[in-house]
Amino acid sequence: MTGIKTTGEKKLMLFTGRAYPELAQEVADELGVGLVPTKARDFANGEIYVRFQESVRGADCFLMQSHTAPINKWIMEQLIMIDALKRASARSISVIIPFYGYARQDKKHRGREPISARLMADLLKTAGADRIITMDLHADQVQGYFDGPVDHLFALPLLTDYIGSRVDRAKLTVVSPDAGRVRVADRWADRLAAPLAIVHKRRDPDVANQVTVHEVVGDVDGRVCVLVDDMIDTGGTICAAADALFANGAEDVIVAATHGVLSGPAADRLKNSRVSEFIFSNSLPTPRQVALDKITVLSMAPTIARAVREVFEDGSVTSLFEGDV
Amino acid sequence: MTGIKTTGEKKLMLFTGRAYPELAQEVADELGVGLVPTKARDFANGEIYVRFQESVRGADCFLMQSHTAPINKWIMEQLIMIDALKRASARSISVIIPFYGYARQDKKHRGREPISARLMADLLKTAGADRIITMDLHADQVQGYFDGPVDHLFALPLLTDYIGSRVDRAKLTVVSPDAGRVRVADRWADRLAAPLAIVHKRRDPDVANQVTVHEVVGDVDGRVCVLVDDMIDTGGTICAAADALFANGAEDVIVAATHGVLSGPAADRLKNSRVSEFIFSNSLPTPRQVALDKITVLSMAPTIARAVREVFEDGSVTSLFEGDV
Amino acid sequence: MTGIKTTGEKKLMLFTGRAYPELAQEVADELGVGLVPTKARDFANGEIYVRFQESVRGADCFLMQSHTAPINKWIMEQLIMIDALKRASARSISVIIPFYGYARQDKKHRGREPISARLMADLLKTAGADRIITMDLHADQVQGYFDGPVDHLFALPLLTDYIGSRVDRAKLTVVSPDAGRVRVADRWADRLAAPLAIVHKRRDPDVANQVTVHEVVGDVDGRVCVLVDDMIDTGGTICAAADALFANGAEDVIVAATHGVLSGPAADRLKNSRVSEFIFSNSLPTPRQVALDKITVLSMAPTIARAVREVFEDGSVTSLFEGDV
Amino acid sequence: MTGIKTTGEKKLMLFTGRAYPELAQEVADELGVGLVPTKARDFANGEIYVRFQESVRGADCFLMQSHTAPINKWIMEQLIMIDALKRASARSISVIIPFYGYARQDKKHRGREPISARLMADLLKTAGADRIITMDLHADQVQGYFDGPVDHLFALPLLTDYIGSRVDRAKLTVVSPDAGRVRVADRWADRLAAPLAIVHKRRDPDVANQVTVHEVVGDVDGRVCVLVDDMIDTGGTICAAADALFANGAEDVIVAATHGVLSGPAADRLKNSRVSEFIFSNSLPTPRQVALDKITVLSMAPTIARAVREVFEDGSVTSLFEGDV
Amino acid sequence: MTGIKTTGEKKLMLFTGRAYPELAQEVADELGVGLVPTKARDFANGEIYVRFQESVRGADCFLMQSHTAPINKWIMEQLIMIDALKRASARSISVIIPFYGYARQDKKHRGREPISARLMADLLKTAGADRIITMDLHADQVQGYFDGPVDHLFALPLLTDYIGSRVDRAKLTVVSPDAGRVRVADRWADRLAAPLAIVHKRRDPDVANQVTVHEVVGDVDGRVCVLVDDMIDTGGTICAAADALFANGAEDVIVAATHGVLSGPAADRLKNSRVSEFIFSNSLPTPRQVALDKITVLSMAPTIARAVREVFEDGSVTSLFEGDV
Amino acid sequence: MTGIKTTGEKKLMLFTGRAYPELAQEVADELGVGLVPTKARDFANGEIYVRFQESVRGADCFLMQSHTAPINKWIMEQLIMIDALKRASARSISVIIPFYGYARQDKKHRGREPISARLMADLLKTAGADRIITMDLHADQVQGYFDGPVDHLFALPLLTDYIGSRVDRAKLTVVSPDAGRVRVADRWADRLAAPLAIVHKRRDPDVANQVTVHEVVGDVDGRVCVLVDDMIDTGGTICAAADALFANGAEDVIVAATHGVLSGPAADRLKNSRVSEFIFSNSLPTPRQVALDKITVLSMAPTIARAVREVFEDGSVTSLFEGDV
Repeated sequence: MTGIKTTGEKKLMLFTGRAYPELAQEVADELGVGLVPTKARDFANGEIYVRFQESVRGADCFLMQSHTAPINKWIMEQLIMIDALKRASARSISVIIPFYGYARQDKKHRGREPISARLMADLLKTAGADRIITMDLHADQVQGYFDGPVDHLFALPLLTDYIGSRVDRAKLTVVSPDAGRVRVADRWADRLAAPLAIVHKRRDPDVANQVTVHEVVGDVDGRVCVLVDDMIDTGGTICAAADALFANGAEDVIVAATHGVLSGPAADRLKNSRVSEFIFSNSLPTPRQVALDKITVLSMAPTIARAVREVFEDGSVTSLFEGDV
Repeated sequence: MTGIKTTGEKKLMLFTGRAYPELAQEVADELGVGLVPTKARDFANGEIYVRFQESVRGADCFLMQSHTAPINKWIMEQLIMIDALKRASARSISVIIPFYGYARQDKKHRGREPISARLMADLLKTAGADRIITMDLHADQVQGYFDGPVDHLFALPLLTDYIGSRVDRAKLTVVSPDAGRVRVADRWADRLAAPLAIVHKRRDPDVANQVTVHEVVGDVDGRVCVLVDDMIDTGGTICAAADALFANGAEDVIVAATHGVLSGPAADRLKNSRVSEFIFSNSLPTPRQVALDKITVLSMAPTIARAVREVFEDGSVTSLFEGDV
Repeated sequence: MTGIKTTGEKKLMLFTGRAYPELAQEVADELGVGLVPTKARDFANGEIYVRFQESVRGADCFLMQSHTAPINKWIMEQLIMIDALKRASARSISVIIPFYGYARQDKKHRGREPISARLMADLLKTAGADRIITMDLHADQVQGYFDGPVDHLFALPLLTDYIGSRVDRAKLTVVSPDAGRVRVADRWADRLAAPLAIVHKRRDPDVANQVTVHEVVGDVDGRVCVLVDDMIDTGGTICAAADALFANGAEDVIVAATHGVLSGPAADRLKNSRVSEFIFSNSLPTPRQVALDKITVLSMAPTIARAVREVFEDGSVTSLFEGDV
Repeated sequence: MTGIKTTGEKKLMLFTGRAYPELAQEVADELGVGLVPTKARDFANGEIYVRFQESVRGADCFLMQSHTAPINKWIMEQLIMIDALKRASARSISVIIPFYGYARQDKKHRGREPISARLMADLLKTAGADRIITMDLHADQVQGYFDGPVDHLFALPLLTDYIGSRVDRAKLTVVSPDAGRVRVADRWADRLAAPLAIVHKRRDPDVANQVTVHEVVGDVDGRVCVLVDDMIDTGGTICAAADALFANGAEDVIVAATHGVLSGPAADRLKNSRVSEFIFSNSLPTPRQVALDKITVLSMAPTIARAVREVFEDGSVTSLFEGDV
Repeated sequence: MTGIKTTGEKKLMLFTGRAYPELAQEVADELGVGLVPTKARDFANGEIYVRFQESVRGADCFLMQSHTAPINKWIMEQLIMIDALKRASARSISVIIPFYGYARQDKKHRGREPISARLMADLLKTAGADRIITMDLHADQVQGYFDGPVDHLFALPLLTDYIGSRVDRAKLTVVSPDAGRVRVADRWADRLAAPLAIVHKRRDPDVANQVTVHEVVGDVDGRVCVLVDDMIDTGGTICAAADALFANGAEDVIVAATHGVLSGPAADRLKNSRVSEFIFSNSLPTPRQVALDKITVLSMAPTIARAVREVFEDGSVTSLFEGDV
Repeated sequence: MTGIKTTGEKKLMLFTGRAYPELAQEVADELGVGLVPTKARDFANGEIYVRFQESVRGADCFLMQSHTAPINKWIMEQLIMIDALKRASARSISVIIPFYGYARQDKKHRGREPISARLMADLLKTAGADRIITMDLHADQVQGYFDGPVDHLFALPLLTDYIGSRVDRAKLTVVSPDAGRVRVADRWADRLAAPLAIVHKRRDPDVANQVTVHEVVGDVDGRVCVLVDDMIDTGGTICAAADALFANGAEDVIVAATHGVLSGPAADRLKNSRVSEFIFSNSLPTPRQVALDKITVLSMAPTIARAVREVFEDGSVTSLFEGDV
């Protein structure tokens, strides 16, 4: 052969945007690596500038950004960082999105709406992302929006282990706050071997976050109810569901969700609610104004770090959840 | 200007594959057009040959094929017909798929599975489809798998109008046969202003169609239950759910679903079931061996025809369901 | 032919995002059409929701959004609106971007930077844009970033006509505030038949908007200087250039630019500057805090409206600027 | 509807590159249109500059360029013209390539060769071509290299009508000069109802145009042989085949081919050959140095013009050759 | 560098669909690897389900599937398996298709036909295939339909070595059964240094597999004729050609082809034919009903295995056939 | 794991087209590798044939071609070579283009022009290029035309070091020959810490290379002027600028440019000019007819070789110019 031959090498590099660097740092600590020094700032008119301080050529790059507020800014920053990695000759770009923004807009409820969850996947692809690592998507189908591998992590083991160890299982009933979330509750019921109930509710598609009717399907009298959802945003649905459960005789209500979005009126609603404990993963930073004693945050950093390592070392992410999900 | 200028014209042409020409003919009759004469045959080794007998240049082509058995053959035929239309200079290609095959494989339940519903959308796009017109997808999110407009039709008005006119509404309860189908039941309950119940069930993801546990959540004693689903395939889930309802005191059980797939053991199961009536749309041909008196088939041809006309005339498909869905 | 044949029609529909609806309304008035009623709002966590109130099927859609602050939000809104138009069967989607965000990030100044201007073009394409109509791009080359037609409008005739009619042409010198902007000044000098001078300046690429050295190349003593640029952002460069001109004996300094971004310290700088008049087009809304008497805003709405009409009617946008640019 | 509605129009515009404007003019005359005035020139270093003198917005553009020498230049010019049409908002771009360059490189004869015929199709697509209109491709499969409609024209009726009217059909034998061209000869034999013979020959794949062995398969003694091929390039194969036919007792030999490439030694070879007449279409200009009395050139302009009209008017190109091919 | 650095590794994994696992097993044995355990089954309605039992992350995956009957099902299974590999993070996906379905539909014989061979290549690409390894394509040009590397294997050395060792070469004549196959016969004649003859035949393009006229071009009297083709499907052409050879005085006729499709009436035709031996490669399973003594099947497994190894080890597939083809 | 596991390897292979093999050889010598033996020739009609003599499977291929005259031919050859590498299973294809053709056509100066610089980037991508390594693009923005990494090399250090060491820096003034080139002169002035002047000039966009007016902005009296540009083509602009400088009292004029295109009248113009020295890099071969004593050519081969090595070894190309550009 005419040329030069050498042994191949591979390099893992971990990056973070500015949305939620604390989680990235936790993951970096778990992995035992540093975060790649990155210059990121806003120009006066709000345009974002990014530059990596080290060569990324040939590296398998993992870029973390959780889509917290201001959500459009952080999505755009992530796209710009991906573009910079691509043009700087990264070997592969895996984006880690603990909370995937716009996941709820995953279908046209009515004509002439966007399917923003698909759009996000396409934007990531266009910018140069090769793989998405994400957590508890609002609908599993969103995996299929990305044209490439999606490694889907689950907070279910983390959350159910915590609850299972603190509550009398014999009194536990798993409750879905909504007809659309029963499948999630179903998985919880399976894992905790508990009965299932549903709070049946209707939304006006034009008026977001505004609940109309609530009826409890199933038996909750004298039970400790775990209301489960993938995310709590303004808290309207979940708090109204909790009220309905208490009204139907529930002894206690606990709320568990992967994503604590907690925006707008959530702070007040959670504070005023009779719910005894709210449990979230740290997929999103907890907004300062929602710092309540009854909120428990469990860390997904060890799970994310293990997933990154499996991806880098060509292991199996599926094996992390074998038997669990 | 140097050149020739003339007024623009547009042409609608309607085509069908060999999967279910009866429905295409019904739609053609509703529209008052003929189906474009098409030569389609199998070579000895099973390869499909297709040729259109008229020029399609510049036409807005609507190509019907419902994904009935043998499903892979009819999907492939559709792809080949699309390719032929594209290469013959069709102006646009809208594929009408009353029953969209592989829609249930819309996520990875476990690692190393395909997302076949997304793959189908990509294959259609690659072949040359510009638009999909389909009915009651297993999950609404599948709309987002296609990179282009999807006109989604609903059998809900047709089915609920039929049932509403034949059953004592005061005694009606809408029942979801499965945690994953509650959202559909929810829409029915809304439209019929009826209470909701759920049959709670678990599947082994490795062993398709095999039901394990059934418990009824909600009150069905003395009620006329309408078990609703998007499709009935082998009938296992739905018949077991019906049994559970009767066991919990239901007075009568009716089953309604958009897609009557009715494959394998469905014929026997439906015959032996205590369900008093099964109601389907004609999105799929009813298999000959399932010709039972208690099966009612309602035609979607008028709806499909109206959708085609709205698409061709740049009207609104959304308006067909205004206030309904 | 088997099928239906009718005469073709085409429809123009004009839409606006929420960034700067006043300009869209002006353009609509010029065209004599209404803006299509559109529902757009933010969910509590900042995700944007959009829905068009009328059918857009088959229409040639023109969607206006100028990339003003908060810039990432308005870009994302535009992408989401394009997605909704595409999925709603628009015949074509022309996006009108009077001020194109991120246009300044049109190259890698140093390794590992993004080329955000190209990324924006790709995101627009991915979302579904067919054509871009924009004004005075920071570099003409950005036209080539979009894979499709770009109709590029110029404020030069508007701005030079205004200045030419108010200043003694014999005393006029056109000045570029920067080595990188001489080509723009050159076009002004051509059109006003005036001599050219340059303020020569260096930037630290890491520290945006911070000017270091200023020397005047060319003769400005006793002259009325028109400092020209495509945009004024924080005003640092332009005000320092004006100071340098006064220090070199300029009698008066006028500033003219297409895009008045005017962010951050611009309000104070413009107020405190000895520049006698600042002239901008209305490609961007003038920030409230910069409402100064010495700011003149000229409307591009008639030009944009003419361009839209030419595009819709298959006329010539080039002809709008024949002999001018 | 909010907006403006008008009747649609369509416009045909015909363009030519500089490779062979005479044929384009003939086609324009047949169509009764002018060629769109176009500025095309070479910069000093050979880069090509192109600009159309009229607006092409919304037009169905037909761009003629035959790939004659210098072939790479004219291919590049065509790509550049397509780019200019695309960016100028042409509604559709049909490229007319009477002789498609690199069609012979349609497979890898050996490892590490290009498939240049596919590359050409991809380059045309990338530049912006929507449709190819071409003539007698070296292999029919090349149609499939373009991802879009290809309208394939045939010179067979033109050439066989001419020969059929000038030669005693009873004495005619159709001869393939090569094992690889038998399928073409087969079509001729069919149409002229004449027997078939083959000159069997081998090429060294590394040394182009150099023939090694010739044996005649079939009976040619006392026959008037028509040697047929899709193209005559250097004339080596065809003249050697003619010699072999005379050596085997042929009374006369006529050569007919669609494409008269006639490069390099062709001038001498044709002059010195005993072949009595060479018949070509005018898909390529006849090189000046090959101006022989025994060369007959038949015009394809009427056929091309009819094809353009059928394409523009959404008629049928297939119908031009019905019953013929 | 901030991050983790390790030596690269690569992994070969071999998979098979359900079409023809025997050949895959033979190749696996040649390579000394196991086939990756794979769950593949049909749902009741015919939809295919696939799941790999081991992690494929980072592996160079080779997926075998020969397009035997039911051909559309096995093509679809292959596409679904590719999708699953892609989403499971395979490093590369090479599909091995010993017999490439639809290869004969490689051009439009008439207007409004598909080019299914190109469509197949595009479907494979869309699903996620990076490379195709295939054997004796019907036309070499089909290689160019795939946008990526195609490793093309030849059965010629295997088949000619076998025949050369069993027949008196001095009496051998190579015969093409058809004008379109002369190029294949030409290669055989070259390698066996034998004379060439042709059976000249016409097909009705509308009526597949129905032969009309047969005449022998070249001398076959008293010769041992080897009729060669790339594939034998229904056997109609080849058996009629054999009859014509016997009628023209052939002493014996042997048939050799890479692909023994042998569908429909082939079983009877081969049995009743006077041909003394039929020789095929094992690119396809021999249908049970065609188990005749006079059929010889030669294994391509060693060649395929060598090709896989060369691909995996970055060697040369071309070198396998150096001097041969 | 079922399969085979081995350590990864990587291979660098260097290729050249026929445009300028001398530079490729110099780079090969710097790297200590041979150029991969390649067969490249023209067929009689000008079509280019290419074949690599060694397997390139799995190699990181670097393909050099500078776009010298005949420019369209060499561009096409490069595209064809890329296609051959792609189909031969190269692992990656980096194209090295010291002089990037058509870079000047990087915008539409007027309507209906192409953006050929973007087209070239798209053609390279379509053919299969993964990365571009180029030098001193006419506009930095052209980097963004390629959808992938572009490694941009600079001749500035080479040229300024040479000049800095030969001229009295105290007398040096850097001069831009044109309003559009001031940014380049700015970088020179920075690096040589010299004052800046401009020759202000206008072009007729329709008539290339024809200069109209020249005025000197800035002080050049008694100075040694270095006229700098990215390329010298016909020499018209630069020689006229030199004349203007002498007319304004310049003591001496030196010309420095990265790319010595030197086409058409350049030979005469340079010979007759009063400029004392012309300094170019060897990005292009110096045309024979321009062999003047006052031309100095400096080699970029060491820089290119270092860049190739950094790319291959996943190092940093940016680091080559740290602090310089």
